[in-house]
Amino acid sequence: MEAYFDNSATTKVFDCVKEIVVRTMTEDYGNPASKHRKGMEAEQYIRQARSQIAKTLRAQEREILFTSGGSESNNMALIGMALANERAGKHIISTAIEHASVYRPLEYLERAGFEVTFLSVDHDGHIDLAKLEAAIRPDTILVSTMYVNNEIGAVEPVEEIARIVHAKNPKTIYHVDAIQAYGKFVIRPERQGIDLLSVSGHKIHGPKGTGFLYIRRGVKIRPLIYGGGQQWDLRAGTENVPGVAGLGEAAREMYTNHGEKVRQLTELKDYLSDRLLELEDVALNSRKGEAGAPQIVSASFGGVRAEVLLHALEEKGIYVSSGSACSSNHPGVSGTLKGIGVAQRYLDATIRFSFGLFNTKEEIDYCMDALKELLPVLRRYRR
Amino acid sequence: MEAYFDNSATTKVFDCVKEIVVRTMTEDYGNPASKHRKGMEAEQYIRQARSQIAKTLRAQEREILFTSGGSESNNMALIGMALANERAGKHIISTAIEHASVYRPLEYLERAGFEVTFLSVDHDGHIDLAKLEAAIRPDTILVSTMYVNNEIGAVEPVEEIARIVHAKNPKTIYHVDAIQAYGKFVIRPERQGIDLLSVSGHKIHGPKGTGFLYIRRGVKIRPLIYGGGQQWDLRAGTENVPGVAGLGEAAREMYTNHGEKVRQLTELKDYLSDRLLELEDVALNSRKGEAGAPQIVSASFGGVRAEVLLHALEEKGIYVSSGSACSSNHPGVSGTLKGIGVAQRYLDATIRFSFGLFNTKEEIDYCMDALKELLPVLRRYRR
Repeated sequence: MEAYFDNSATTKVFDCVKEIVVRTMTEDYGNPASKHRKGMEAEQYIRQARSQIAKTLRAQEREILFTSGGSESNNMALIGMALANERAGKHIISTAIEHASVYRPLEYLERAGFEVTFLSVDHDGHIDLAKLEAAIRPDTILVSTMYVNNEIGAVEPVEEIARIVHAKNPKTIYHVDAIQAYGKFVIRPERQGIDLLSVSGHKIHGPKGTGFLYIRRGVKIRPLIYGGGQQWDLRAGTENVPGVAGLGEAAREMYTNHGEKVRQLTELKDYLSDRLLELEDVALNSRKGEAGAPQIVSASFGGVRAEVLLHALEEKGIYVSSGSACSSNHPGVSGTLKGIGVAQRYLDATIRFSFGLFNTKEEIDYCMDALKELLPVLRRYRR
Repeated sequence: MEAYFDNSATTKVFDCVKEIVVRTMTEDYGNPASKHRKGMEAEQYIRQARSQIAKTLRAQEREILFTSGGSESNNMALIGMALANERAGKHIISTAIEHASVYRPLEYLERAGFEVTFLSVDHDGHIDLAKLEAAIRPDTILVSTMYVNNEIGAVEPVEEIARIVHAKNPKTIYHVDAIQAYGKFVIRPERQGIDLLSVSGHKIHGPKGTGFLYIRRGVKIRPLIYGGGQQWDLRAGTENVPGVAGLGEAAREMYTNHGEKVRQLTELKDYLSDRLLELEDVALNSRKGEAGAPQIVSASFGGVRAEVLLHALEEKGIYVSSGSACSSNHPGVSGTLKGIGVAQRYLDATIRFSFGLFNTKEEIDYCMDALKELLPVLRRYRR
């Protein structure tokens, strides 16, 4: 048996994604910039994807900008926004548990003369709203937080954050890294007060090398890539038609019977969470049900090194991620696990299980059998 | 019959490309950053592609950086190089016939305080080497030229350019936009004195949304996209494994029996070039044989508007590009056709035919029949 529980790293594509990618590589392979029919056909795929995605967010098509992935979306949102608006101020607020594709562009902006305040989080991975409010200044141009944390599945209160940000300084732009949230949550940027939203394709059974940035109309962004006038002059380069079309299909599929899909993921999460507690000396860093993202279980196994357990599980065809606390070498910003105060002895003993729509309960049972067999051996071996 | 003669805009993928893209989307779909076997497998695809590409250039694997396409490669080469080296000088030299993904980043650099000299070209689209030499100054950090011009297939004397650049100022870096040249020419950056080389995947029957930048070891570049430490911290984001693997396959395939493939393209070019002269009032802007790129024929049809002819051909399933002179709104830099001094009455009457490896002589005959039928009608209609 094989059990791929690393869907927050990447996913297998949906069949409908594979089909449209193949079709646009081999039949409808035109360049959207070409003036002939083959070009128009290609452009039609781009339009369809833009429409499919806009619908999932109740956004306008003009607000969806295709990128080469989540990292480019985050870089564009942060660097692009900051450099386009630096005359309005040079202060930015973010959190201590952001992904590298957020905190590293922020470090770049620090070197370019911006000041960045990194807010700490509580044991659940949530920022303190009072501290956020206090941190917002007249020169704060941007607040950037995750929607869902990639290591523990903590869900930030984005609506409350947006409300506080816009009330305290109506000029401040709110960026949300939704790379682990899109497809799992009903997101309505306009209603929720989100100005910029980053999304990746390959976390939702779409193609790698794809993503988009939602840019609320009126928000000024400087391009990262200049050239041909594609995408309203905001992102040059021949559109990746197969990638974009695949992303559109993945988005459409994720948000079809969406409640059902979220329930399916949540059931897997809750089932594994419950069953893990059958084991000795295991602590959960994620939350069951709606208190956490539907797809992520983070568990610390006392007395075991995460990487050793990861490889032992791999031998049985079970693929997980080690949620090491030290992925970050960012001075002043530790990893998520440190950020939420995970005990020292658990820091290096934490595994992330992340589910996708191809997973089953049987795979979890198989994984539990493996854990019950492996843990005592690994623990004995360690001592 | 269908005749797709717009291969310099984009191409249909090779079968081997389609196959590896599908395999890496549906079976070997891991994230190269994952520590388990599925991650290692994915990384292996990246390594293989890097090795395949390095071999075609006799370069080191460490010198190949994957990007999301030619535009990103050019932007990274120009903006990334200039910002990483601005202390050494702020002068850049380029030409009047560059693609938008070169001259628009250069415009950005002008706004950022750099000075850019745009060299004019002669009737063949070649820069004047004496003028180039005279333009190089102690503070010239970068010279950027095309290898093959995308509108007329002019081939720049890159080796001579490199020799002059490095002799006059050993610190100056030479960037070559090889987007229309890679796959069609034997390129040896090290031997030819090229420091940076931009390539796109979808011009060589590879996937859209892929490309690479050759960065000679020792050349300093600032990233455009920050985040996870992928690709030696130079280009963040989960690698587009299907895209990269497909690009590697396309590169391998293009350079297998390479001489044969170039002959095949050149024969098509020369055959069409000859046959076009059967028609009245046609002027060729491209050169036959080795005097021009093997895949591009640019022809001006007196008394016809290019866009009208393009759509008339489209009706017959023949897909070409209109090589309009006015694609550029760059002040001081006109399009290639103006740059080479094409007569005013031909400027708006120019069509680009560009060949790929799926084209045949029969398609050209079909196209000639169509032209013979259409041109008299369109010309009468115009008068």
